[in-house]
Amino acid sequence: MTLQGTSLIGREAVTGDQAVIRAVDPASGEALAPDYPGLDRHAVARACQLAEEAFASYRETSLDVRAAFLEAIADEIEAIGDELITRAMAETGLPRARLEGERGRTCGQLRLFAGVVRAGEWLDVRIDPALPDRQPLPRVDLRQRHVALGPVAVFGASNFPLAFSVAGGDTASSLAAGCPVVVKAHSAHPGTSELVGRAVQAAVTRCQLPEGVFSLLFGAGKEIGQALVADPRIQAVGFTGSRAGGLALLATAQARPQPIPVYAEMSSINPVFLFPEALATRGPAIAEGFIGSLNMGAGQFCTNPGLVIGIKGQALDAFIEAAAEAITGSAAQTMLTPGIHAAYQDGVGALVGEAREIARGPVGDGPCACQPALFAASAGDFLKSDALQAEVFGAASLVVECDDLDQVKAVAEHLEGQLTATLQMDDGDLEAARTLLPVLERRAGRILANGWPTGVEVCHAMVHGGPFPATSDTRTTSVGSAAIHRFLRPVCYQNLPAGLLPEALQEVNPLGVSRLVDGKRE
Amino acid sequence: MTLQGTSLIGREAVTGDQAVIRAVDPASGEALAPDYPGLDRHAVARACQLAEEAFASYRETSLDVRAAFLEAIADEIEAIGDELITRAMAETGLPRARLEGERGRTCGQLRLFAGVVRAGEWLDVRIDPALPDRQPLPRVDLRQRHVALGPVAVFGASNFPLAFSVAGGDTASSLAAGCPVVVKAHSAHPGTSELVGRAVQAAVTRCQLPEGVFSLLFGAGKEIGQALVADPRIQAVGFTGSRAGGLALLATAQARPQPIPVYAEMSSINPVFLFPEALATRGPAIAEGFIGSLNMGAGQFCTNPGLVIGIKGQALDAFIEAAAEAITGSAAQTMLTPGIHAAYQDGVGALVGEAREIARGPVGDGPCACQPALFAASAGDFLKSDALQAEVFGAASLVVECDDLDQVKAVAEHLEGQLTATLQMDDGDLEAARTLLPVLERRAGRILANGWPTGVEVCHAMVHGGPFPATSDTRTTSVGSAAIHRFLRPVCYQNLPAGLLPEALQEVNPLGVSRLVDGKRE
Repeated sequence: MTLQGTSLIGREAVTGDQAVIRAVDPASGEALAPDYPGLDRHAVARACQLAEEAFASYRETSLDVRAAFLEAIADEIEAIGDELITRAMAETGLPRARLEGERGRTCGQLRLFAGVVRAGEWLDVRIDPALPDRQPLPRVDLRQRHVALGPVAVFGASNFPLAFSVAGGDTASSLAAGCPVVVKAHSAHPGTSELVGRAVQAAVTRCQLPEGVFSLLFGAGKEIGQALVADPRIQAVGFTGSRAGGLALLATAQARPQPIPVYAEMSSINPVFLFPEALATRGPAIAEGFIGSLNMGAGQFCTNPGLVIGIKGQALDAFIEAAAEAITGSAAQTMLTPGIHAAYQDGVGALVGEAREIARGPVGDGPCACQPALFAASAGDFLKSDALQAEVFGAASLVVECDDLDQVKAVAEHLEGQLTATLQMDDGDLEAARTLLPVLERRAGRILANGWPTGVEVCHAMVHGGPFPATSDTRTTSVGSAAIHRFLRPVCYQNLPAGLLPEALQEVNPLGVSRLVDGKRE
Repeated sequence: MTLQGTSLIGREAVTGDQAVIRAVDPASGEALAPDYPGLDRHAVARACQLAEEAFASYRETSLDVRAAFLEAIADEIEAIGDELITRAMAETGLPRARLEGERGRTCGQLRLFAGVVRAGEWLDVRIDPALPDRQPLPRVDLRQRHVALGPVAVFGASNFPLAFSVAGGDTASSLAAGCPVVVKAHSAHPGTSELVGRAVQAAVTRCQLPEGVFSLLFGAGKEIGQALVADPRIQAVGFTGSRAGGLALLATAQARPQPIPVYAEMSSINPVFLFPEALATRGPAIAEGFIGSLNMGAGQFCTNPGLVIGIKGQALDAFIEAAAEAITGSAAQTMLTPGIHAAYQDGVGALVGEAREIARGPVGDGPCACQPALFAASAGDFLKSDALQAEVFGAASLVVECDDLDQVKAVAEHLEGQLTATLQMDDGDLEAARTLLPVLERRAGRILANGWPTGVEVCHAMVHGGPFPATSDTRTTSVGSAAIHRFLRPVCYQNLPAGLLPEALQEVNPLGVSRLVDGKRE
């Protein structure tokens, strides 16, 4: 496919007339054709109007039609073939294997949501049958289902150009819920975005859905991103990115005459707790796993292990030594953009005065090479320093050395909200871990043992979320099937004639969905 | 019980030193003893600190302990006896039968939530078992449950001194979720609040729970209400009241360093649609039901039918005539407070210039008597006038006369978010109702046929919620068992040793709860 450098508004390809977005190969610093001229606010309004018009019929598509559409998107993405991978490699500096894996994950996610749509758990059907003889008052027939919120604005992230971008988790879960989507493309991978956008557009046409179900907009975040969130037709926002970016969208959403939910997945340093027995038994092996996780994608993961907490002593020293060795032997990887690379350098620079430098990886080639870095600091210093607690996006981490378990707990209690918390523990650490668990449950969306936080399984039990500032809404997840609930609201139907009842609520259960009847699961 | 005029902070009775709150009998205008001196911000902080301390153990109480606590509250409220009813009558002007019914509803609601806690659906347990042989990568064991958000601030409402106040729906659902509650008492019924507060306090003691599980604060909303929402230990807010009050709390919650969810149930005019055949067949009977609903509690219901929409013609004229007759024969009822009465008079006054006055009820005795009022206006005028679309809290309603069904739809599309929408329809109206249904689904939390919106059943399928400004969060309900979800968040446990897993997630399902295993309901 020849890239056109256009936005996609419904079935049209639209060339903007605002400032141009141009991809840069971060490995070489060279610009990549074509140019993507940005749109203006009028184009945003047109996409939102089309989404609003599409919502009327899309929200009530049958479960099969909607599921088939999600599957068609996956098929169309796969049909792009290797062009998608090579373009994404050029735009992001990420290696082929990673991007092929990410494509598999993206398509698998769309197909998972197809299954979720068909299973119908998301409808949360509840029926309280009439009780005409109840005293002192009869009860009328009451039935509840969930319906789609309305058009959703999705902001693609830079670090997962497929799985958290144009047809990523936010788009898949919105479309699954019955919400049309208007995507603001991330400027770091416009060609990848166009390719995926055209795949979604093709699926819309193939499934004979109204064109406004999907649009893809290129332009400046401060202009069209803000205009999109402010548009009265948009009813929810999905975002993955920086804390500053997420908070700016949240402020706009709250300032609307009608405030709307914003699901912003923002910042997390993902603490890893090293318990004494695990550290003593297998410290060097843990160190190796840790550096592997830290370096994954040049550390550009929301779940990157940016903080390691252990108790001072020989075992921790041995861990640090092994980690230092591993980091010294780590090849520098290309970061996503010059801007992200510059921010990483600044972030590491800010640690230099505050913490002890343990090791740096080799200086790499190219303008955006990430030199991994490991620091250490005492718990006392950590608790006092904002700089040590700040997220450094990239392959940098800090080991916090505690006097004892009480101080480990104090550090945990001091943490902001996190996406994940990791326990490295053996059998003898059970009691200590049990003491820490309630503290971590209040601070993280996912708690894992003897693994690494990078690598987020797309399944039913996943929570990729957590207390603020990990996300703007701790009641939800942005990965896994429960993400669909973000774009739904309940409606109750009281005493409606059978001929008016939505299919999901009809007495004979034509959709065959799980129902809560008089409070009991059927 | 002798009323003390004190706030309750944990197990202590605390006398404030700020401006005094004094109940007024709205029927006579006379003040009722005792005085309730308001608290200051330090007292708010103390209650929040106790709630935070209680949260550590209360959040993990067993299902049985928590359910028994909710039942104990109901028992203690019933044990107050007639003093509760007579005090509430004196403070609110509401009649005995209504308050006895409301007490039954309040205690029934607490017992419903006890059942909900025991059934464990709210845990939303999800298990994705490990797949060690999966290619290309194995899957680890992933389990999800829901946990309590943290201490909750609850604001009692004036119009339901029992069911939406100290131990009302917000308190019951917070406690059911595992969240301690700090209640800001409504100043209109302090004695009723103290009685119920002491009942909750007694239940806390009887169940040997930490004292901070419940506190009850008297004081000025602008002072201690705002301080409560701003307190960093508070993690969610439940509110029922005016749009201005709800939006003020929402602004405070959003301005916190850590924003928190606010569940504010605010304003709704609850449109009633009269379809042609129903109107022709039984217009006068509908009119009678309508005025009965309008006058319920002197119109001081969130679900009061403040708007009636029909098609011009003989049948609508007959309906209006019958409604006028019913209203003329309606006795004036005492409103809750002098302030609410004054606002009602202003609201009705604002309609006088804008709409045609159809009928007024008789002028009543006493300073707070509500003179019911019915107005009519053309759809054209309605669509142009903000005054005609504003909520008038009390027994006033407006009939909107449309040219045809298209104009009925235009009026529906023009409405703000609503708690309810009502269809008065017969078999021949099915097609017309079907056309309107999608419009109403986007604008209301509950759609009902051939009944009246007042009277909100406390059950599993109920939605007492709706799009903004009916509530600040359309994804939820404040009545019924689904209200518990407002105070919960998901946590995922990955590869945790069996000894660390919460009981709800253990393999053998010791709680016997419904589970989603690999996406399938078990």
